[in-house]
Amino acid sequence: MRLATLNDGSLDGRLILVSQDGRHATPAPASTLIGALQNWTQAEPALRECAAALEAGKAATFDFDPLRCAAPLPRSPQWLDGSAFLNHGRLMETAFGTPPIPEFDTVPVMYQGASDDFLGPHADVPLPSEADGIDFEGEFGAIVDEVPLGASPDEALAAVRLLVQLNDWSLRALGQREVRTGFGFLQAKPSTAFAPIAVTPDELGPAWQGGRLHLRLHIDWNGKPFGRPSAAEMNFDFGQLIAHAARTRRLRAGSIIGSGTVSNVARAAGSACIAERRMIEKIDGGEIRTGFMRFGDRVRMEARVDIDTTGPFGVLDQRVVRA
Amino acid sequence: MRLATLNDGSLDGRLILVSQDGRHATPAPASTLIGALQNWTQAEPALRECAAALEAGKAATFDFDPLRCAAPLPRSPQWLDGSAFLNHGRLMETAFGTPPIPEFDTVPVMYQGASDDFLGPHADVPLPSEADGIDFEGEFGAIVDEVPLGASPDEALAAVRLLVQLNDWSLRALGQREVRTGFGFLQAKPSTAFAPIAVTPDELGPAWQGGRLHLRLHIDWNGKPFGRPSAAEMNFDFGQLIAHAARTRRLRAGSIIGSGTVSNVARAAGSACIAERRMIEKIDGGEIRTGFMRFGDRVRMEARVDIDTTGPFGVLDQRVVRA
Repeated sequence: MRLATLNDGSLDGRLILVSQDGRHATPAPASTLIGALQNWTQAEPALRECAAALEAGKAATFDFDPLRCAAPLPRSPQWLDGSAFLNHGRLMETAFGTPPIPEFDTVPVMYQGASDDFLGPHADVPLPSEADGIDFEGEFGAIVDEVPLGASPDEALAAVRLLVQLNDWSLRALGQREVRTGFGFLQAKPSTAFAPIAVTPDELGPAWQGGRLHLRLHIDWNGKPFGRPSAAEMNFDFGQLIAHAARTRRLRAGSIIGSGTVSNVARAAGSACIAERRMIEKIDGGEIRTGFMRFGDRVRMEARVDIDTTGPFGVLDQRVVRA
Repeated sequence: MRLATLNDGSLDGRLILVSQDGRHATPAPASTLIGALQNWTQAEPALRECAAALEAGKAATFDFDPLRCAAPLPRSPQWLDGSAFLNHGRLMETAFGTPPIPEFDTVPVMYQGASDDFLGPHADVPLPSEADGIDFEGEFGAIVDEVPLGASPDEALAAVRLLVQLNDWSLRALGQREVRTGFGFLQAKPSTAFAPIAVTPDELGPAWQGGRLHLRLHIDWNGKPFGRPSAAEMNFDFGQLIAHAARTRRLRAGSIIGSGTVSNVARAAGSACIAERRMIEKIDGGEIRTGFMRFGDRVRMEARVDIDTTGPFGVLDQRVVRA
């Protein structure tokens, strides 16, 4: 199933089902995605029946327009972002000039982000200053059902209901200071943005294996290819990340757990954020050549199984503007 | 006005107004506190009219029973907790063995906490292990109306709609590790708990001055006095804390900004958390004598203007239990 949320001016938007070719949509038999997730056992059969009717040409449809979409969940109970690609984490330690994180290879690191005000796939990104070091971070996330306190990684993985693609917007000049406080990112993380379509794991076939997404994230900055890293290289899988989050508290249905910035050891794939490219420039050539984003810049992200297919999550394409 | 939320099994509970003597209550002319906050300009006059009728004995009342209360906001868009008492922060640096936080005296530090699952004033606190270092943290918080991105401290202070008293439950063994990652507290922060009554600033008279609460927090651990620190010693006021939170993103109505653990330089006042007492024991006597909480332990917190009066927020009295 492919689900999206139309922006109708309300806090939770209006849930729709999207066809597999991404061209058509139909109203879902549940008004909001959060409502469906809070009652998934009852909501899922009706949603699947409606999705089957959509594919069979038996539903009343309208053209699917990503420009009308909010984030699949415009707000959620929690947004917890891991750093599951160790290659990214090590490069960011170099960027921030901070000491190595203890147990980084064995215990996931994760920060709690704001979850009350997500951006849709084509919404402008209002930010106060270019001097804050405006950067994108291409990632994936898992939306879970209720997860009990102390769930194992296997139990946690079984609670994944939907997968999403996202841009964890970052302000690097602020992040560098905040990581040194030990209190985590706050000013450094403006609203996170999401690609329009949330998909059930079964929809992804072999692209969802071992709690990881076997997809490449195609990132273009101002129309130029920037990176094509594979998400299969995740060092912790989503089950491990979710179990980490549920170690001392239950997770409510609709909580979103992020992978952290997709990053590959092989540098030919490019990067999913500017800070990483800057560190590679410094390490390889001795100097940073790439600046951060300017107002008016755009970044486009699309996950693909291979170069020719359309991504299951649709496209995230945003412009940075002065707040 | 004094507002509380009855636990009726729903996510947001049922809003009531509480009399100034804390003995009577009446249903509010708004079903939930989050609903009233999202539309405060319209909701406030009706709430005040109802509160006046309650005081005048002209409303249909029932006995106010804090045992039936959820947190005033059982969930909120954001929970952002500062560390505005520098005395506490410096002692915690000693406790965690971490280097001094840069600009600690001039830029507030703040972490993003979970805001989807708050505990009521008498709810048991389910935790997985005594070995995690179970600790309480007595604090205050401000609930705001919508705050625009980039608001000044004065604008931010003007957006305060309600004040609350809370216990920011902490797991110190986990916090010590998490603060070293730079990503902030996550496993170290199970659900935060709130005293039953949220009050409008005008209700506090001279106890609300300069964006600070001039109240003493009376904390008893297992029935024995533990600390009586004054919140007036806050080094950053709530306006500064809220403006810090809104530096790069707007805050939605109903967001809660916390003071951090109340702490006084004068040691006679005692502490509002165990970790602080332990550090003082170590500094003054060379060894830590006090352990953290055990399953079955209780902690009671009540803010008072002076020793004889009842606190405006009511009482927070909880027991720690094995999850």
